Formats: sequence, C-alpha cells, structure tokens
Amino acid sequence: MLNAEELSTIETPAVVIDLEVVDANITRMQGAITSRGVNLRPHVKSHKSVDLARRQLEAGAVGITVSSVGEAEVFADAGVEDIFLAYTIWAGSARRAGRIMGLHQRVRSFSVGVDSTAGAQQLANATRGADRPLRVLVEIDSGAHRTGVRSEEAGDLAAECQQLGLDVVGIFTYAGHAGTSKDARFSGAADEVHAVEQAIASLSAQGIPVGIVSAGSTPTAVISAHAPITESRPGEYIFNDADNVRLGTCESLADVGLFVATTVVSTAVEGQVIIDAGTKALGREGNAEKGYGLVPSLPGSSLRLLNEHHGYLSIHEGVTRPSVGDVLIVVPNHACPVANLFGEYIVIDAGTVAGRWPVDARGHLS
Amino acid sequence: MLNAEELSTIETPAVVIDLEVVDANITRMQGAITSRGVNLRPHVKSHKSVDLARRQLEAGAVGITVSSVGEAEVFADAGVEDIFLAYTIWAGSARRAGRIMGLHQRVRSFSVGVDSTAGAQQLANATRGADRPLRVLVEIDSGAHRTGVRSEEAGDLAAECQQLGLDVVGIFTYAGHAGTSKDARFSGAADEVHAVEQAIASLSAQGIPVGIVSAGSTPTAVISAHAPITESRPGEYIFNDADNVRLGTCESLADVGLFVATTVVSTAVEGQVIIDAGTKALGREGNAEKGYGLVPSLPGSSLRLLNEHHGYLSIHEGVTRPSVGDVLIVVPNHACPVANLFGEYIVIDAGTVAGRWPVDARGHLS
Repeated sequence: MLNAEELSTIETPAVVIDLEVVDANITRMQGAITSRGVNLRPHVKSHKSVDLARRQLEAGAVGITVSSVGEAEVFADAGVEDIFLAYTIWAGSARRAGRIMGLHQRVRSFSVGVDSTAGAQQLANATRGADRPLRVLVEIDSGAHRTGVRSEEAGDLAAECQQLGLDVVGIFTYAGHAGTSKDARFSGAADEVHAVEQAIASLSAQGIPVGIVSAGSTPTAVISAHAPITESRPGEYIFNDADNVRLGTCESLADVGLFVATTVVSTAVEGQVIIDAGTKALGREGNAEKGYGLVPSLPGSSLRLLNEHHGYLSIHEGVTRPSVGDVLIVVPNHACPVANLFGEYIVIDAGTVAGRWPVDARGHLS
Repeated sequence: MLNAEELSTIETPAVVIDLEVVDANITRMQGAITSRGVNLRPHVKSHKSVDLARRQLEAGAVGITVSSVGEAEVFADAGVEDIFLAYTIWAGSARRAGRIMGLHQRVRSFSVGVDSTAGAQQLANATRGADRPLRVLVEIDSGAHRTGVRSEEAGDLAAECQQLGLDVVGIFTYAGHAGTSKDARFSGAADEVHAVEQAIASLSAQGIPVGIVSAGSTPTAVISAHAPITESRPGEYIFNDADNVRLGTCESLADVGLFVATTVVSTAVEGQVIIDAGTKALGREGNAEKGYGLVPSLPGSSLRLLNEHHGYLSIHEGVTRPSVGDVLIVVPNHACPVANLFGEYIVIDAGTVAGRWPVDARGHLS
C-alpha cells in the first residue's frame, strides 16, 4: 500500500488501485479458470478501464464481457476484438440499431444476449444486410429470477433465433443469488451447472449444437468452472472488496486492490469523525449495521451513515481518533459502482504513485 | 411530459428533465424565499449544470452553493461570481491550497465553511499573500451531528479565524435530520433557527458581528426563511423527487422535473419486468419496502431490487404488464445522486426534446 507521505499528497476523495494486488488477482483467477479447462472472459463493468482490460487479455482472457452498447463501443474503439454484450439489449430505436450494426461490422467477434423473441427480432432487424449473421447467446435463468428463459424453453428460443437469421453460438446464465452468503456461492454454482445442462438438452432436442456455455460470477467462477461450462465471466475479482472477503471469494483484505482515499474534514462531534467520502464516492452499498465500507487502520470503526459528500465514521472506544486533515483508506463493500463514480484511477505500484488511468467507460450506460 | 412517440426515440437509461417543471420549481422557491425577506443561494450539487445555475441566478438567486473545490472551479470557469463552498474543506496539500487560492483570487466573492481551528489555519495558509482575506462562515451543528461546532463555541472559533487573518462573514448550518419525516421538517427548521440564534449570541459576546446567517435545505427552506436567517441553500427543489413528495416539500408528482427513462429488457419471469435502470442509473436510494423509485404509469408497481444494470419491477396484479422494448419513466427517490451518474441531461420542453445539456460538474468530487 501507499506510504503515508504519498498518501497525504492525494486530493480526496479519490479512487486508488494497487497494481501489485490487481495483477496478482488477474493472475490468480486466470490460472484457476484455465487450469480447469475453461476460458475466462472477464466482465469489464467492474473497472471500465482499457488499461486494465489489456492486462486481463495479456494474461490469457479470450475476450471481454460488457453490459451496455456504450461500454462495447469504448472497448471496440480501443481495439478489443472479442466482445460479449451479456445483456438482453433492445435494439428498437434507429440510432440504437445503427450502433449495434456498427459493433457487429467492426468487431471480429461481437455477440449479444437474448431472452425473448421480440428482442431477437429487433437484433435481426438491426443487423440485416451484414456480411454475416449476428452472434447471439440465449440467456438461461439459473435461479436469480432476473433475466433469462427457463432451461426447458431455451431450445424453442434458440430455434426462433435461427429462423430470424441469427447465429446461435451458445447459452449463458448469471446466478445473482449466489452472492448472498458463503453457502449460496456453492448452491448457486450448482444451480448454474444444473440450469445449463438442462438448457443444452433443450437445444439438442431441437438439433442445435451448443458451442459456448457461459456462466460464473466472482462468487461462483472457480466453483462452476468445469464441463459443460466452457467460459466464465467474473468481474469483481480484479479488485475484490469487503463483501468478497465476507463471502470468502478472496482470502483477506490483502487481496483487495481498490480503495477510496478520503480526508477527515471534521471532528466536531465526539466519538466520530466526518470524512469526505459519501454516496458520490462510495455509492450506497451496505447498511447501517454492517456499515458502508471498512477503514482497516481504525479497528472497530463503523462507517455507519453516508450523505452525498460526507461519511460518518464512528470511532471505537479506546482507539485514537484521527485528526482533521488525516487521510484514511476506505475499503468499499462493493467495488463495481465506485470506479464508475470517478474519472480516473490513481494507480500505485510498489508503494508509490505510478500514474493516473482514465475510467474510460464511466457512465456509458446506454 | 414527453409524448410516447418521442419517448421511444430516447436511448436508455437516460436522465430527462422537464424544463417547464424545472422553471416552475425555480420560480416558486425563489418567490417563497424572497417574499420572506431572505436571499436564495441554491445548492448546485443537485444538478451540477451551468445552464441550470444560470436560470437560478436569472430568477434572482444571490449566488450559488457548492460542495467541493472541483465544483467551485466548474462554476467559476462559467463566470459565476458569488460562490459559497459550504464544506469544511481541508487545504493541506500544496495542490489543494493552490486551487483554493486560485478560486479566492478570481471569484468576486468566494467563501468557505470552517468548523475547526486546524481547518481554518490551513485556509489561512493557503490564501496568505492574497490582496484580501478569505471569506469564511463558521459552521454550526443544529442537530444533524455531522459537521459544525456547538452554537456556544461558535464565537471562540470565529475569534480564532479572525486572529488567523480570515474574514468571518457569517455562520451556516445544515439540519440534515429534518429530511426524515414531515414532522421532522418543522422541528428541524426550528432547530436551525434556535442554533443560529445561540451562535449569533456567541459571536456577539466576542464582539464579532454576523453578516450572513445561512440555513435551509429543501425540506426546511421555506419554514426557516425568516430573521435572523438571511440566506437559504436548498438544492433538490429544482427537480424534486419521490422523497420530496412523501415529505410534503412539493405537492405531487406533477412538481417533479427529473426522471430516468428506461426500457423493459426482459419479461422472462412472471409478475415482473426487468428494466435497464439499476444502481448505475438510480443510485441505491431506497429500500426493498418503499422501492428504489416510482413508475407512475404502472399503479401498484414496485421497483423492489436493483443490480448495477438491472431494475426488478414487480407488476401489480390486474395491471397490464409492459412488453419488452417499452420505455418507462422512473421517478427517483432522491434526485441528487442521479444527475451525477450521467454525462448529459435530455431536456424536454413543451412535450418535445429541446436539447441535451452537459452535467458539467459530474464527478468533480475533490
């Protein structure tokens, strides 16, 4: 981590990444997934950074996963040639259809999620006249009950996609319910495997081969990385966060590579300090009980309340209260929304500030 | 509001403002505060838009309130000449000190909040050598127990500020606890008045006259707009939101001028639809019980859960479920974090898209 002297030179609030930890996280996940015979396709929504995506690709990722057309465009502009938009994008408006056609024509392998006939129809319309059909993956609901058809309906939707002229290259699922507890990680990973096995059977019954079987988020990636799953899409693992430590998806706070640097701006009220990191720096991820982030340098402290530009940090009895002007490090509960709130990362390497990297796809929501 | 045809041309998620409602909100608050003999100094953290600040100033605002050095710089660059940084900024680093000196030298009236001797010392150091002393307002805690000294200590801090060479132009307070219920609005406003009265006495005992007495947020502004308060700093009122309707700070949803336009991207799970507005479009403002925003076109619906890029909207029995591709309007619970998540506003006027305005100070947190 950064030495105290350099820490005090950072204007706060700021998002800081520790490149040694980030690189170790990239290497560890890549090794864990590859050694199980599965491809890694990291979700870049977690970092939105071209520099970080390049490091993941250089480490062996087969491509990237994105969550919006705008994100896909940022990484396509940067030369990424294999992009899966793991989202049931609606291509209805003329402008949106044109952007999807643009990505399809200039990215070597661009694929999109579908879970409805209507959505597939719009994607087919949007890419009509291209020199090859658009690649789609049918989304399966493995228990998150968010998006995705039931496994037994996957074959019907895949057949409809083919009739519409789309290239059905596989299936994908997201077990959002696996991120709620340590036990849920294992049951959620089992749900992923069960759901895709059923879906493969459903497509096979229609005579449709399944090339890509994509699953895996940071909580489940290593657990479900085995046949029939062929690709995994974790995102958070590049940074990790306090929730990942709680879930056991990383070993300890030493595996967390993203922080918010914040300054104590008031000590006027006894028993607490006020820091300059509020919801516009940390999001509102957490609750009053577990707090909205951890401050490891202050054992027993609780970041119990956030306003937009203020965090209320209760100081444990017997712990020396920091002074106005002290810079503290907050470990977010959830890293992904944090990067999106800042324009740039402060990148530290070997304990010193090595540069500032843009959060290239910040706010590219549509 | 926008007609359905134009609505369907918006790429979503997007933040949309209705200029007729916004202008009515500006006029109403300006009239309510001015008619009570109090100056209005809107907090621009709510909108972060130079265009909108200009409308507030043209309507009669005496200046603006900001929450960070970066925000102050954006509005100073746009030519705003009266800026109150209502924040206990720490000027410790050389770079930060230089930025504060820069604002002090180029803005006709630039003032800053203080609630500690150490903070005041740094501000004095930062602006040493300027052709006039930096203007500061002493912050008073009126019950939010966030920042601000106790009223009875205000005179001591004011005297220390003067000894440090700062120009003590007044006091300010923020009754954050007033935004929790309708009753709390009234008791919070009374707390503001009581706290500043005591603080004025404390400064008077030191022989320090109090020029500016600043209080008032959207929940309290109209209630506490009377002597000895001379300035009010509401922000949200320019847009209003679902929480303001609940609190009674505006009359109905017809007074809300900011929305998130979102598209239904999945209807795969019965009883709900999935929209493309998640925490990266709405923040995580709300809870499962009250929901994370309102969808007025679907009575009884509940936006019960948000992921980063997905909202789970439960549809009330008997209400026709929207289809994939339908564009819906979400009224946020809290407007302020929403604008900060987008690069631009889609501005509608008289039911048609009138332009796109940048969210100029988005993410200028430090």
